Amino acid sequence: MIPWRNALAELLGTAALLCTVVGSGIMAERLAGGNVAIALLANTLATVFALYVLIEVFGPLSGAHFNPAVSVVMALRRELPAASLGVYVAAQLTGAMLGAWLANAMFDMSVLQWSTRMRSGSGQWLAELVATSGLVLVILRAPAGKAAQWVACYIGAAYWFTASTSFANPAAVFGRMFSDSFAGIAPGSATGFVVAELIGAAVGVLICRLLR
Amino acid sequence: MIPWRNALAELLGTAALLCTVVGSGIMAERLAGGNVAIALLANTLATVFALYVLIEVFGPLSGAHFNPAVSVVMALRRELPAASLGVYVAAQLTGAMLGAWLANAMFDMSVLQWSTRMRSGSGQWLAELVATSGLVLVILRAPAGKAAQWVACYIGAAYWFTASTSFANPAAVFGRMFSDSFAGIAPGSATGFVVAELIGAAVGVLICRLLR
Amino acid sequence: MIPWRNALAELLGTAALLCTVVGSGIMAERLAGGNVAIALLANTLATVFALYVLIEVFGPLSGAHFNPAVSVVMALRRELPAASLGVYVAAQLTGAMLGAWLANAMFDMSVLQWSTRMRSGSGQWLAELVATSGLVLVILRAPAGKAAQWVACYIGAAYWFTASTSFANPAAVFGRMFSDSFAGIAPGSATGFVVAELIGAAVGVLICRLLR
Amino acid sequence: MIPWRNALAELLGTAALLCTVVGSGIMAERLAGGNVAIALLANTLATVFALYVLIEVFGPLSGAHFNPAVSVVMALRRELPAASLGVYVAAQLTGAMLGAWLANAMFDMSVLQWSTRMRSGSGQWLAELVATSGLVLVILRAPAGKAAQWVACYIGAAYWFTASTSFANPAAVFGRMFSDSFAGIAPGSATGFVVAELIGAAVGVLICRLLR
Repeated sequence: MIPWRNALAELLGTAALLCTVVGSGIMAERLAGGNVAIALLANTLATVFALYVLIEVFGPLSGAHFNPAVSVVMALRRELPAASLGVYVAAQLTGAMLGAWLANAMFDMSVLQWSTRMRSGSGQWLAELVATSGLVLVILRAPAGKAAQWVACYIGAAYWFTASTSFANPAAVFGRMFSDSFAGIAPGSATGFVVAELIGAAVGVLICRLLR
Repeated sequence: MIPWRNALAELLGTAALLCTVVGSGIMAERLAGGNVAIALLANTLATVFALYVLIEVFGPLSGAHFNPAVSVVMALRRELPAASLGVYVAAQLTGAMLGAWLANAMFDMSVLQWSTRMRSGSGQWLAELVATSGLVLVILRAPAGKAAQWVACYIGAAYWFTASTSFANPAAVFGRMFSDSFAGIAPGSATGFVVAELIGAAVGVLICRLLR
Repeated sequence: MIPWRNALAELLGTAALLCTVVGSGIMAERLAGGNVAIALLANTLATVFALYVLIEVFGPLSGAHFNPAVSVVMALRRELPAASLGVYVAAQLTGAMLGAWLANAMFDMSVLQWSTRMRSGSGQWLAELVATSGLVLVILRAPAGKAAQWVACYIGAAYWFTASTSFANPAAVFGRMFSDSFAGIAPGSATGFVVAELIGAAVGVLICRLLR
Repeated sequence: MIPWRNALAELLGTAALLCTVVGSGIMAERLAGGNVAIALLANTLATVFALYVLIEVFGPLSGAHFNPAVSVVMALRRELPAASLGVYVAAQLTGAMLGAWLANAMFDMSVLQWSTRMRSGSGQWLAELVATSGLVLVILRAPAGKAAQWVACYIGAAYWFTASTSFANPAAVFGRMFSDSFAGIAPGSATGFVVAELIGAAVGVLICRLLR
C-alpha cells in the first residue's frame, strides 16, 4: 500500500518550501537595490516563517520531512517504513521542482530555467556538512510539538553562520537548480552539495548518539 | 438577531489590520530612502506582529476572520451562520476603509485618496490565487489556539514568496484602494485580485479535503 | 505600608525599557548611515525583545506596568490599590529617567542632556491616542500568561503603523526627553503627547467595555 | 567522576554559539556593503535564533550555560557541583575557540587569526557590566522551560541597547579573539571585558536577591 496521502503532504510541503525560498529570493533580489545582506535578511525571514507553518501544518500527516536526508535518517531509525522511503524522496524532489516552477511563473519569468550560480569549494562543502549535521541533531532531539519552532529557528541562524547559506537538504538543492536567481545553484554544483549533506546527516546521527 | 458584538469585533479588527498595512507602508516608504526591500521588510514585520495580536484579541469574539473570503468558507462549512455572512462582510469592508482613512489622517495626508498603483497580469493573479489557497489551508488545519501564530507566520512568508506581496483578502484589496502609497492598489486592479482570491479560497478548501 | 518591592520592580523594569529604547536608538542612528528605516527596524526589534522579557521577568512582582497610563487604568479597575498609584508612577518616572541616563553613559555621551526633537501636530497626537487605546485594549483583554507576547507584538506593529512611532506611555515620554537622539522628544512636545495618551487610554477602556 | 557528557554538551553548544556569532558576523560584513546597522541586524537575528535552539537542545543535558560567568553563579548557588565548575569552564573555552575556527574555515579564511579590533573605555565596560547583570537576572528568574526564549530575546535586545553589543560572556570574549572580523575583539581588550562581566554577574545576583 502506497501511503499516497503522506506522499501528497511531502510533495505539497516541499513545493511550498521551495516556492518560498526561490520566490522570496527573486523578490528580495529585485527590491534590494544590490544590497545582498538586505536580500538575504528577507530570504531568511520568509524561510523561517514558512518552515514553522509548513512543519506544523504537514507534520501530523507525513512527519513533514521535506528533505531526503531526513527521510533516510528516519528510515534507518525505523521511524519511517523502509518501503516508504522511495515514495517520500520522489515526492520531495517532484515537489521541489514544482515549487521552483511556481515561483518562476508568479514572477513572470520563464517557468523552465536553470541556475548558472556556481557554488563549490571546500568552504562551501564544509558549510553544508556542518549545516546538515546541526539540522539532523536538532530534529532528533526535538520532543513532540517542538520540531517546527526548533527547525525554523535553526535554519534562520544557519542561513547566516554557514558560508553556503545552509541548503542542508538535497531536495532544496534539486529545486534551486531550476531558478537562475540569487537563491539558485548551478546543476554542476549539485553533487558536491548533496554529498556534503549526506555526510553531515551521518555526523548529526553520530553526535546525537554520543550525547545519549 | 444581528450579532452586533461580532460585527463590531470584525470591524475593529479589520480596521486595525488595514491601518497597520497602510500606515506601516506609508512610514516605511517615507523612511526607506528608496530601498523598497527595506520598506517591505518593515511592512512585513508590522503586519506579522499585528495579525498575531489581532487574531488573539478578537478571535474569542468573532473568530477574527477580517477577510470575506474566509467568512464565505466558514459559512459554507456551517461554522458561521449563513445569516451572519452579510453582516460580517459589511463590517470587514467598512472597517478596512476606516482603517486606511485613519492611517491617512495620522500621517497628515488627505483622508480620502485613491491609489493609482496598477497591479495586474497573470503573474499577479496567480500569486493571489496561491496566497489565498495557502491561507485558507492554514486556517482550516489550525487547531484551537494556534491560528494566530500560524496565520501571522504564513502571511510573513507570503509577503515575500508571492509576486503580489499577498493581499489574499478582498477586504484588504478594498481598504488599500484608499491609499495612494506603496501599499495601495488602484480600484481598476481590484476585481482581478478579488476573483483570483476567491478561486484561491476554493482551491484551499479542495486541498484541505484531499489531505483528510 | 509602601509596596517597596513592587516599586523597585517598576523602577528597574521601566529603567531597562527606556535604556533599551534610547540605547538602541543611539546605536541604530550611529550605524545606519542615514537610512532611518533601518534605524527604526533595529529600534523596533530591540524594543519588542526587551518588552517581552521585561514583562515576563517583572510581571509576577509588580504587574509590569512600566506605564503611568496603565497604572491609572488598573487603579480605576481596582486591580491596583489606589494607595499604590502614586508610588508606581513615581517609580516609573524615576526609572525612565535613570534608564535614559544609563544609555547616555554607556554610549559615552553627557549623561544629562535634553532632546531638541519637536514632535507635535494633529497627526502625531492622533497617533498617540490611537497607539495608547490599542495598548490598553490589548492589556485588558490579555489572559494570564499572554500579556508579554501580546504587548511586545502590539508595540512592534505600532512603531510602524502610527505616525509617532507609538510612545503610548507617559513614562516613555518623560525618559525620552533626556536623550538628544533619534528616539528623543523635546520637553516642549511632552504635554501634547501625554494628554493624547491619557485620552487614548480612556478610549481603550471604553472599547473594551463595548466588546464585553 | 568527570561529567563528560555534560562537558561535551557545553563544548558543542558553546562552539555552535561562537560559530554563529563569528560566522554570521563574517557573512553580514561581507554582504552589507558597509552599512553596519544591516550587518548588526543580521548578526542579531542569527544569534537570537541560535541561542533559542541551543539552549533548548542542550539544556536537558548540561543546563546550557555556554558561559563561565553563568557557571560560576550556578556553582555559588549549588546548582552546579563545585567539582564540575573547572570542567565546564574548560569545555566552554575550548568550544568557543573551536567554534570561531570552524567559522573561519567555512568562510575560506585562515583558521588561526587574531582580532585587531580594540574595544575599551568606560562606556564599553559599563555596557558589559549592565549586559551581564541583566543576563544573570533573566536566567535566575526564568522558570523551567522559559530560559531559552527569555535569554534569546534578552540578548537580541542587548545587542542594540548596550554600547558593546553585549558579549556578556567570558567564553564569547575568548572565542571572538580568534576572529579578525566585525565580531572580533583584540586580545588586549579581553581582560577589561571579562572583569566587567564578572562584576556584572555579581550585580545581577544582588538585584535578584533584592527582588525576592
